[in-house]
Amino acid sequence: MEEQQISRMIYNGLITLQHRGQESAGIATLNGNDMHMERKMGLVSRCFSENSLSALKGNTGIGHVRYSTTGSSCVSNIQPFKVSHPMRGIAFAHNGNLVNYVDLKGVVSGKGRQIETTCDAELITHLLSDHLMSSNDIESSLVDVMSRVEGSYSAGMMTGEGDLVAFRDPNGFKPLCYGKNCDTCMFASESVAMDINGIDGVSDVNPGEMVILHKDGDMEKKQMVKPDRKHCMFEWVYFSRVDSVIGGRSVYNVRKKLGENLAKNFTSEADVVIPVPDTARPAAQGISDETGIPLAEGLIKNKYIYRTFIMPVQKTRDISVRMKLNPIKSVIKDKHVLLVDDSIVRGTTSRNIISMLKRAGARKVDFWVTCPPIISPCFYGIDISRHSELIAANHTIPEIKREIGVEKLCYQTIDGLVDAVGLKKSYICMACLTGEYPTPMAQKISDRMKTQKTLGKRYWEMES
Amino acid sequence: MEEQQISRMIYNGLITLQHRGQESAGIATLNGNDMHMERKMGLVSRCFSENSLSALKGNTGIGHVRYSTTGSSCVSNIQPFKVSHPMRGIAFAHNGNLVNYVDLKGVVSGKGRQIETTCDAELITHLLSDHLMSSNDIESSLVDVMSRVEGSYSAGMMTGEGDLVAFRDPNGFKPLCYGKNCDTCMFASESVAMDINGIDGVSDVNPGEMVILHKDGDMEKKQMVKPDRKHCMFEWVYFSRVDSVIGGRSVYNVRKKLGENLAKNFTSEADVVIPVPDTARPAAQGISDETGIPLAEGLIKNKYIYRTFIMPVQKTRDISVRMKLNPIKSVIKDKHVLLVDDSIVRGTTSRNIISMLKRAGARKVDFWVTCPPIISPCFYGIDISRHSELIAANHTIPEIKREIGVEKLCYQTIDGLVDAVGLKKSYICMACLTGEYPTPMAQKISDRMKTQKTLGKRYWEMES
Amino acid sequence: MEEQQISRMIYNGLITLQHRGQESAGIATLNGNDMHMERKMGLVSRCFSENSLSALKGNTGIGHVRYSTTGSSCVSNIQPFKVSHPMRGIAFAHNGNLVNYVDLKGVVSGKGRQIETTCDAELITHLLSDHLMSSNDIESSLVDVMSRVEGSYSAGMMTGEGDLVAFRDPNGFKPLCYGKNCDTCMFASESVAMDINGIDGVSDVNPGEMVILHKDGDMEKKQMVKPDRKHCMFEWVYFSRVDSVIGGRSVYNVRKKLGENLAKNFTSEADVVIPVPDTARPAAQGISDETGIPLAEGLIKNKYIYRTFIMPVQKTRDISVRMKLNPIKSVIKDKHVLLVDDSIVRGTTSRNIISMLKRAGARKVDFWVTCPPIISPCFYGIDISRHSELIAANHTIPEIKREIGVEKLCYQTIDGLVDAVGLKKSYICMACLTGEYPTPMAQKISDRMKTQKTLGKRYWEMES
Amino acid sequence: MEEQQISRMIYNGLITLQHRGQESAGIATLNGNDMHMERKMGLVSRCFSENSLSALKGNTGIGHVRYSTTGSSCVSNIQPFKVSHPMRGIAFAHNGNLVNYVDLKGVVSGKGRQIETTCDAELITHLLSDHLMSSNDIESSLVDVMSRVEGSYSAGMMTGEGDLVAFRDPNGFKPLCYGKNCDTCMFASESVAMDINGIDGVSDVNPGEMVILHKDGDMEKKQMVKPDRKHCMFEWVYFSRVDSVIGGRSVYNVRKKLGENLAKNFTSEADVVIPVPDTARPAAQGISDETGIPLAEGLIKNKYIYRTFIMPVQKTRDISVRMKLNPIKSVIKDKHVLLVDDSIVRGTTSRNIISMLKRAGARKVDFWVTCPPIISPCFYGIDISRHSELIAANHTIPEIKREIGVEKLCYQTIDGLVDAVGLKKSYICMACLTGEYPTPMAQKISDRMKTQKTLGKRYWEMES
Repeated sequence: MEEQQISRMIYNGLITLQHRGQESAGIATLNGNDMHMERKMGLVSRCFSENSLSALKGNTGIGHVRYSTTGSSCVSNIQPFKVSHPMRGIAFAHNGNLVNYVDLKGVVSGKGRQIETTCDAELITHLLSDHLMSSNDIESSLVDVMSRVEGSYSAGMMTGEGDLVAFRDPNGFKPLCYGKNCDTCMFASESVAMDINGIDGVSDVNPGEMVILHKDGDMEKKQMVKPDRKHCMFEWVYFSRVDSVIGGRSVYNVRKKLGENLAKNFTSEADVVIPVPDTARPAAQGISDETGIPLAEGLIKNKYIYRTFIMPVQKTRDISVRMKLNPIKSVIKDKHVLLVDDSIVRGTTSRNIISMLKRAGARKVDFWVTCPPIISPCFYGIDISRHSELIAANHTIPEIKREIGVEKLCYQTIDGLVDAVGLKKSYICMACLTGEYPTPMAQKISDRMKTQKTLGKRYWEMES
Repeated sequence: MEEQQISRMIYNGLITLQHRGQESAGIATLNGNDMHMERKMGLVSRCFSENSLSALKGNTGIGHVRYSTTGSSCVSNIQPFKVSHPMRGIAFAHNGNLVNYVDLKGVVSGKGRQIETTCDAELITHLLSDHLMSSNDIESSLVDVMSRVEGSYSAGMMTGEGDLVAFRDPNGFKPLCYGKNCDTCMFASESVAMDINGIDGVSDVNPGEMVILHKDGDMEKKQMVKPDRKHCMFEWVYFSRVDSVIGGRSVYNVRKKLGENLAKNFTSEADVVIPVPDTARPAAQGISDETGIPLAEGLIKNKYIYRTFIMPVQKTRDISVRMKLNPIKSVIKDKHVLLVDDSIVRGTTSRNIISMLKRAGARKVDFWVTCPPIISPCFYGIDISRHSELIAANHTIPEIKREIGVEKLCYQTIDGLVDAVGLKKSYICMACLTGEYPTPMAQKISDRMKTQKTLGKRYWEMES
Repeated sequence: MEEQQISRMIYNGLITLQHRGQESAGIATLNGNDMHMERKMGLVSRCFSENSLSALKGNTGIGHVRYSTTGSSCVSNIQPFKVSHPMRGIAFAHNGNLVNYVDLKGVVSGKGRQIETTCDAELITHLLSDHLMSSNDIESSLVDVMSRVEGSYSAGMMTGEGDLVAFRDPNGFKPLCYGKNCDTCMFASESVAMDINGIDGVSDVNPGEMVILHKDGDMEKKQMVKPDRKHCMFEWVYFSRVDSVIGGRSVYNVRKKLGENLAKNFTSEADVVIPVPDTARPAAQGISDETGIPLAEGLIKNKYIYRTFIMPVQKTRDISVRMKLNPIKSVIKDKHVLLVDDSIVRGTTSRNIISMLKRAGARKVDFWVTCPPIISPCFYGIDISRHSELIAANHTIPEIKREIGVEKLCYQTIDGLVDAVGLKKSYICMACLTGEYPTPMAQKISDRMKTQKTLGKRYWEMES
Repeated sequence: MEEQQISRMIYNGLITLQHRGQESAGIATLNGNDMHMERKMGLVSRCFSENSLSALKGNTGIGHVRYSTTGSSCVSNIQPFKVSHPMRGIAFAHNGNLVNYVDLKGVVSGKGRQIETTCDAELITHLLSDHLMSSNDIESSLVDVMSRVEGSYSAGMMTGEGDLVAFRDPNGFKPLCYGKNCDTCMFASESVAMDINGIDGVSDVNPGEMVILHKDGDMEKKQMVKPDRKHCMFEWVYFSRVDSVIGGRSVYNVRKKLGENLAKNFTSEADVVIPVPDTARPAAQGISDETGIPLAEGLIKNKYIYRTFIMPVQKTRDISVRMKLNPIKSVIKDKHVLLVDDSIVRGTTSRNIISMLKRAGARKVDFWVTCPPIISPCFYGIDISRHSELIAANHTIPEIKREIGVEKLCYQTIDGLVDAVGLKKSYICMACLTGEYPTPMAQKISDRMKTQKTLGKRYWEMES
């Protein structure tokens, strides 16, 4: 392969993973012993140009798109994060969220290190490089990190000496996979990043596993600590792209099955099934196939307004909800509509959509939700932040029905969800549905939050 | 209504009409006798900010998004176009394309006027303001313009004296409608711009008609010249938003009907119907309903890459084709696929998509196209520029099948199209399908182009 | 000459005239019948690049630097101002200030013209082009403008037909000169613009005169109205560059003579003469030559902070006074200093400088001022805006001495000033020194301002 | 003092030191344990805004303006340079140039550190922080650095623990001083930075000395290595501001004395003494005082074109020479002129100025130069880069006279220079005047350059 191409493959991959983070993007490459890096606020297509990609020389590199749950939105928080030693420099990026951030910050700070950002990635980089300075051994350093950190981290690290290291927390909350061609090996959160680059043969980096791609192209895999699989169910339900394969399961198939499972548990006399685009479309198809009720595209997304769930500020969220969807009246008018969506978080979006259908002439609206009720916050990287914001944490089903203005409301069951995902129940993290957390500090914080209601954005910082 | 709100309503409208032009955007408002204007290159959401919208004071205004077929991509070509007299200033914007641009340029230049842009809108503004300076009469000035200009123009004009004037060429190639609330009247290319602003009661500005909204809120309608309806069929087939109502016909319904009509004329033994998203989705639904072959979302659009048809440069077009779609292998593998798309222009996109399906494991691909073969260029504003670029202008169906690599290829019939649109055949412009143009110079240019093959981009400039 | 060079000559000229306006800059050129224009906020060197100058094609052009006394600081107010007809477009720029702006605005507005800026230049352009549209005669149009406008305007106008027209108000308040080479003719406010371009033979455009440079290179001069010379004395005292020749008088020589004349009228026992750099340096030299007291550079200007008098906002003015000068203690310590400056406006700057000298160890400070006391506002383009801001308008010499903290204070006499300038007394505008204005509305406004004390920035707008 | 003020004091200081580097500027501050940093390309006034200074919180900080002799002009090379450990982070900035850069780069690289910039400051920071990591002792780390580095470095370092450390190379090539108020201590290259901030009592950091300002405000001074004073004579002759006191000697006084010493050694029959502004003005005054020939400002600087010596690219240098000066003809015409300038480097500027005087009518030109002939390159930070560019290295006085077109040419003598500076001859670095270098590698490179004539910009990189 030609020298300058890796930055373009990374760029293509980031474009396909844009839905995982729209705040900022970065790419670091290694050319000989020189690291090149470009990091900017904004969408991938605006962060990089023909020129900046050409300047990112070399045939090894890592990239990142950021979606902030921890840390503020500013330039210094953009990943990859870089230190200039040891190993002739380390560039690091991850997807995830550290539960014991405050404790770890104390540890790093105590080692005489300046903490420059409010970003998880910096802490992991400091822990790693500190251990590497004394040990000069990647393996033991990763074991050390895995023993200290509680939380999710699907991570990639590149050293100035030419090694590329991917590793994943023992719970494997977030996805991490890799594929290999004759001459190229690629790691990514989702398989779509390989698809766009024409790379096949996708497998997972296992929870607690490390995969090193050495400078000479040799790949080395090693299980570092015992895995305790807890894959985030929300990746299939909402977060991942529908054309990805996550944990070996096609997201499209899981979503279609979620619809079919709803149709097995509930009935509707609706005239038409209408999905909230785009996430709920496969489930609506599944429902239509199962029930025989015809599917129609009754809600149209304004494609020039971006996905609402991902934006940090409340006010922006409200405006974009109002602007993102438009009903097709000819499809809705005088119809009994079966509306399908992936989830209800605060209930605001659902209420707005339902009221939109009613104004467009819907006679009656049934509402089927492909995810069970969300009742507890997530500390592993999904922006579901506190009980008081979760409508299902504080209301009964009849109350929610009234609140969002719907005639009939059917939630997926936990069993229906597990069946659709197709993995053992114990392999799936459903903490936000059950309030039972797979890691101790997360449980502790959640319990405390229930009693102390007035907490700031990064409430778990108070734990120290 | 509060003073400053009109700019926000125009902004919302432009967001919904973004698909009609992504090159640049502009808004002009009138506050007392002061005109305010903001015009920038780029998407609407990047052209305007909270601050710039606040600075656009007043409760009368016009806005525009530009999609260049005539004129280069530069700041000076952004509409609205403004002159400072007569009538205390005129701001003008239109959707369309002038066929006799070069002749008109000579006329305007001969009147001692500096032509500053390469944009149609400037010529119309000069013609209008020149006539207005001597006549001071809007009506006779519009009749004069309509008698001189050949081509499409759905236009809006605001005067510094407070009148808002909408008018449409006698053929009504491009859509133009309006709606009215208790206190607000809005004109727009498509009804979605009213939907987002909560304005109902949408009607069309008729071909050859003028509608004036006077300063005091009175509305005056007048047929200026005899209409000769020739609505562009491509608005329903591809260009307009699926949730718009164009010429009184729901775009969604027309597209669904296009699918049903295909299914009435052709048969397929496919296992699954897969639309090219997003345009072909309703047609695919229509086909699925009519044939019983299940529908599946087998091709997923990368939403962070914009629509390809609209970008000016060839090279950009190729890159974005490769990046815009991803197949879901689990849906496609070992299947006989019935692929549905809205049209084939050059054939390149179709060939790429079909080859993508084959690589994803499709056993066999039938390809149904909701629009009949495009064989002749458009001079009225759709970027279909010359015979040599149109695969159907130079190839037989078997040749096209071979070219794009498909087992079976079925085009919509002219009658199937007319039936789906639901208007009289003579009311629909199908020049690009038949080579018969409703206006004389267009016919002349097309005939000449067939013989003289090597023409530059704005070939019709050579007519003078 | 090569086609593209005129923009570079204009650029060079603007660089040398930067002191006349630092707010914005613009250049318009004519290439065939096409006008090119570039206008930006900021210093000339930042407004234009290699590329933008190359894009300004053609061998005819006009340029401008803006120093706002009338009109707000914004992009639309940058000159040249352009209209697209008659004469295939007109680009216009001037230096000056219209006293009867409000009256003229009413006239222009009454002709159905939209006033887009708050800039004098637009009004003159509208008056001119309106008259030109009916008369098509430049000469009678200029006579018409000169009869309507009260105020200062040294102006340049370029038509799309290729004529370049320079003209100057009948009083000739502001300078305007021209020079001619074998192949190039240039008009400019000051002769330095010719110097940098290697153009010799500089003469003045006379007050009330028009000079047309025709497309074919022929030059035509014509006295339009009877002149009533009233050259602004401040051009020699402070505003023009010391290396310019204004009205046939070397600014350097005038300033040196101002010093000599002070030395003829007053005595000092000082040890050292110290000028406030850079304006007062020649006068200080004149004083030193005449008195025998040695000159020293005791105050050093921080060259990276720009001239203070020219900045619009009060607050900025104060900060920059504090930062612009630094004393050399070794020169000042224990010395009796004779400080020389060009003028005292509000007194603040003088007080700060004197206090700086005292802190640096000056035993005693005499202060000689090369300009007589300023007691009345200027309406012709110098930013001396109201009586209440002028220390000499409200205080006796002893009061001013106390206010600025100086032992001895000597102002130039009116006769000393007239003698140094070297023109007939009646040829010099000294309204700010005498309160007697050469034009009627200026006198009327000044009289009214004395009684009505609370007036806004553009107080004369209230005259209508 | 209020928390946020230190960034403003640093900003003010940088403004006064702008002449020392116009390429880029940076400020780092410490607030508690958080370091804030802002670094940009361009002039100080454009690098920082009200907002960015407010964001630089804390009452400890360092700032820098960059003038590149080593390293390319890019963002990553802007100082301060920062590492995140040890000592909770270190920010470092210096003025100087490392002679053994290439050797040191090998050392640092061998320690497993990624070298990110092409900037001296990074190497020193790495050497320091590497030693500090093992020793945790600032003093021994500085001794180590001083023993390894050959070259000039007047340096400031701030640790995340709150210490501010200033130190200077044992030769003290570049100036470094400090001043102290009741509550503020400031280090800077020149005393003007204290003047603007109202800080008195300026002393020098001695060559080979370290001064620590501890977090609690205590100051500790320590001589680290034996000094071997070699102050760069060019600081007084040209580089420093005329209002600075360098090494205890007023720059103004030294320059005036340089003029007086010329007048003691040479005679002239000129009518007028004209300095090349601004540097030569005090010397011209000294000559005028000593000879009785009157002084006049015959050359006027265009203040909107920046100092020419400091710009990196040859081409820019030529354009700006042509644009920076304008003669006052009335002062020069028919006169025998005694021109005074500080130095002749390549001779181009001198030739241009003299030809300008002749064109302005000078009858005859004598040229007195306050600095002796420059015959050898500087490796300690002045941009005099190779023998072939130095006119005096390759030409006799008569040849130079002919080359620059002057009737009489008088250079300062070495003794005249030493006398004017007022320090022991052995304390002054005059390597560029004698070819004898105070440090071994500089001597070696210079010797080699004389024989190998074709060397690139950073020729000494070839030493390894």
